Amino acid sequence: MRPQTPGYSFRVTSVCGHARAGVLTTPHGDVPTPTFMPVGTQGSVKTLTPTEVADTGARVVLGNTYHLWLRPGPELVAAHGGLHGFAGWPHSMLTDSGGFQAFSLSERQKTTEEGFAFSSHLDGKKMFLSPEEAMRVQGLLGADIAMQLDICPPGQAPRDEVGAALERTTRWARRCLASKRADQAVFGIIQGGTHEDLRLSHAAELGELPFDGLALGGFSVGEPIDDMHRTVAAVAHRVDPERPRYLMGVGTPRDLVASIVAGVDMFDCVLPTRNARNGQALTRFGRVVLKQARYREDLRPIDESCPCPCCRGGFSRAYLRHLYIAKELLVLRLVSAHNLTLYGQLVADARASIAAGDLSGFTARWAAAGTDREHA
Amino acid sequence: MRPQTPGYSFRVTSVCGHARAGVLTTPHGDVPTPTFMPVGTQGSVKTLTPTEVADTGARVVLGNTYHLWLRPGPELVAAHGGLHGFAGWPHSMLTDSGGFQAFSLSERQKTTEEGFAFSSHLDGKKMFLSPEEAMRVQGLLGADIAMQLDICPPGQAPRDEVGAALERTTRWARRCLASKRADQAVFGIIQGGTHEDLRLSHAAELGELPFDGLALGGFSVGEPIDDMHRTVAAVAHRVDPERPRYLMGVGTPRDLVASIVAGVDMFDCVLPTRNARNGQALTRFGRVVLKQARYREDLRPIDESCPCPCCRGGFSRAYLRHLYIAKELLVLRLVSAHNLTLYGQLVADARASIAAGDLSGFTARWAAAGTDREHA
Repeated sequence: MRPQTPGYSFRVTSVCGHARAGVLTTPHGDVPTPTFMPVGTQGSVKTLTPTEVADTGARVVLGNTYHLWLRPGPELVAAHGGLHGFAGWPHSMLTDSGGFQAFSLSERQKTTEEGFAFSSHLDGKKMFLSPEEAMRVQGLLGADIAMQLDICPPGQAPRDEVGAALERTTRWARRCLASKRADQAVFGIIQGGTHEDLRLSHAAELGELPFDGLALGGFSVGEPIDDMHRTVAAVAHRVDPERPRYLMGVGTPRDLVASIVAGVDMFDCVLPTRNARNGQALTRFGRVVLKQARYREDLRPIDESCPCPCCRGGFSRAYLRHLYIAKELLVLRLVSAHNLTLYGQLVADARASIAAGDLSGFTARWAAAGTDREHA
Repeated sequence: MRPQTPGYSFRVTSVCGHARAGVLTTPHGDVPTPTFMPVGTQGSVKTLTPTEVADTGARVVLGNTYHLWLRPGPELVAAHGGLHGFAGWPHSMLTDSGGFQAFSLSERQKTTEEGFAFSSHLDGKKMFLSPEEAMRVQGLLGADIAMQLDICPPGQAPRDEVGAALERTTRWARRCLASKRADQAVFGIIQGGTHEDLRLSHAAELGELPFDGLALGGFSVGEPIDDMHRTVAAVAHRVDPERPRYLMGVGTPRDLVASIVAGVDMFDCVLPTRNARNGQALTRFGRVVLKQARYREDLRPIDESCPCPCCRGGFSRAYLRHLYIAKELLVLRLVSAHNLTLYGQLVADARASIAAGDLSGFTARWAAAGTDREHA
């Protein structure tokens, strides 16, 4: 069944193998795909202003419903005209359902067919997250794209547990669609762990529902990385080609490259900003781990070919290392902008390479990015 | 004796009462005075980029010699072409002598006529700061303006201790001038506590030496605030009018207003950036203390009349409060830029008001700034 949300569309503009480039349109503008969505957990992409985030090429920011629901509360966000007004972000936004964090961060959970009961990790307050509540809260947050509430089993859960999660996810998918805001897009979430057959049948099942996009959830949750790559490679290109395909919570540059080749359009991950705060700058040539003594007198920027404000600003590795060791907050911003720029460049190169029919050039250019190799 | 450092000049362009507006010229450009110098302790004005600092109107940044001497070491800074290249700051810079921090932060100090012996607060390493070493380190840091090494007695030290400090400061003044870089300006530091006669005689004594500027040191070190204001009012306008007068480590907006009226040209203080990191935004109408519950649903910016990126960016007090409580680093930057913009506006208004001969309008406009009153 085709999605019907007004103001939303997705069109594929180029295909190369299973990879595709396209444009996702929301009421907040066009999003060229493949796209990487920086994570703004609590209403801010950590350390950066909206302008700086947009300057990395990002056109969608992800907000975490669980965090914003607990603090400051969705009503206050709604009073600002939604998350766009609250955080000052003019482009598109997506919120997750809150289920993943409710399960992983909260205390005293109990899951039933009705939803998750849990206690807030902040103050112990008892909360209940049902499909209807997930849509109500996301409706107040007012992102362009909401996610259905799903059940995400652990990475190496037994097949019958994965199957049960998948079935409940489908039932919750119908409840989410029945209670969604008419003007808000909603994506369904395909589960199935690393079982290709379960993934494919769930993809077909959710494809029958009028979701505006389809996500692959339940990856990068503890399973071996090669199992994830194998499953994504087998499944992604068989998810409805007319809707955007979103691989949730993934990943490293290497994960993005492999998944784009497999046919994925959208990604989100805390890795670029979290690694930045740990003093790790990512480059196409490997990492720069700022605390290492080798950079103590290194007058070069992180990456001479990088267009980010940190590399263009003339800040040397020695200076950044000094700031990191001296616990100066400026370095966290500079490296966050650098790492997100790398992700922005990766997806921009993917779009251009797909349009040019040159996937092998794309994969070759990014072969060393995000590996454990140190940048020379 | 007139200063002789090439590339430096100071001219007074307007006088109004004791207050004056002028232009300090260094090899890195013109600095309109009165000026406020943000503090970049460890090679960074905390949380902000050089561009953001300049956008607040600042044209001089202060670096702390003690901190940079200990870490990363002045040789590394020199390898970057000095502090300008290290920190990416294109305008003028000033470094303090390191004496104040060596005295207040380090361990196991011993002061003799030769200098300060102390152990680093970072690693216990034994260091020795003499007038010659202060000039050598500042020469490597390469700021436009260096400060002489001085003796700063505690705020309410007995008169004989203040007198002895002052005499040694004069002897160290001569040693600093004898060992300074020929192309680096040096300011002398007038001591004397809150003893007007000691301050005046020391001002006259140091005025005989070829310093490029004269500072009032040893204020805001524990003495009653009214004693400071009284002393500055009595002394500042009697310091050589042909050289810039710099009140070190001061202060609140109220302190700046009173001291500008008294004839001071230059200020530095950590207050605007430190208060920002404590969640206190300063405005002309009083403070906004972000953690207060009164701002929980306040959709207004900190100050609707403020041109800073935080107030112009549409960030509400409720949003900033949320970020502060959620420990999101973005808020520290936004409020730091806001507070430094307030200081930039204060000194810009001083310059315009002095030129217009309207000191009373200036003092009236800033009467509520920096007080403990809460902004409505």
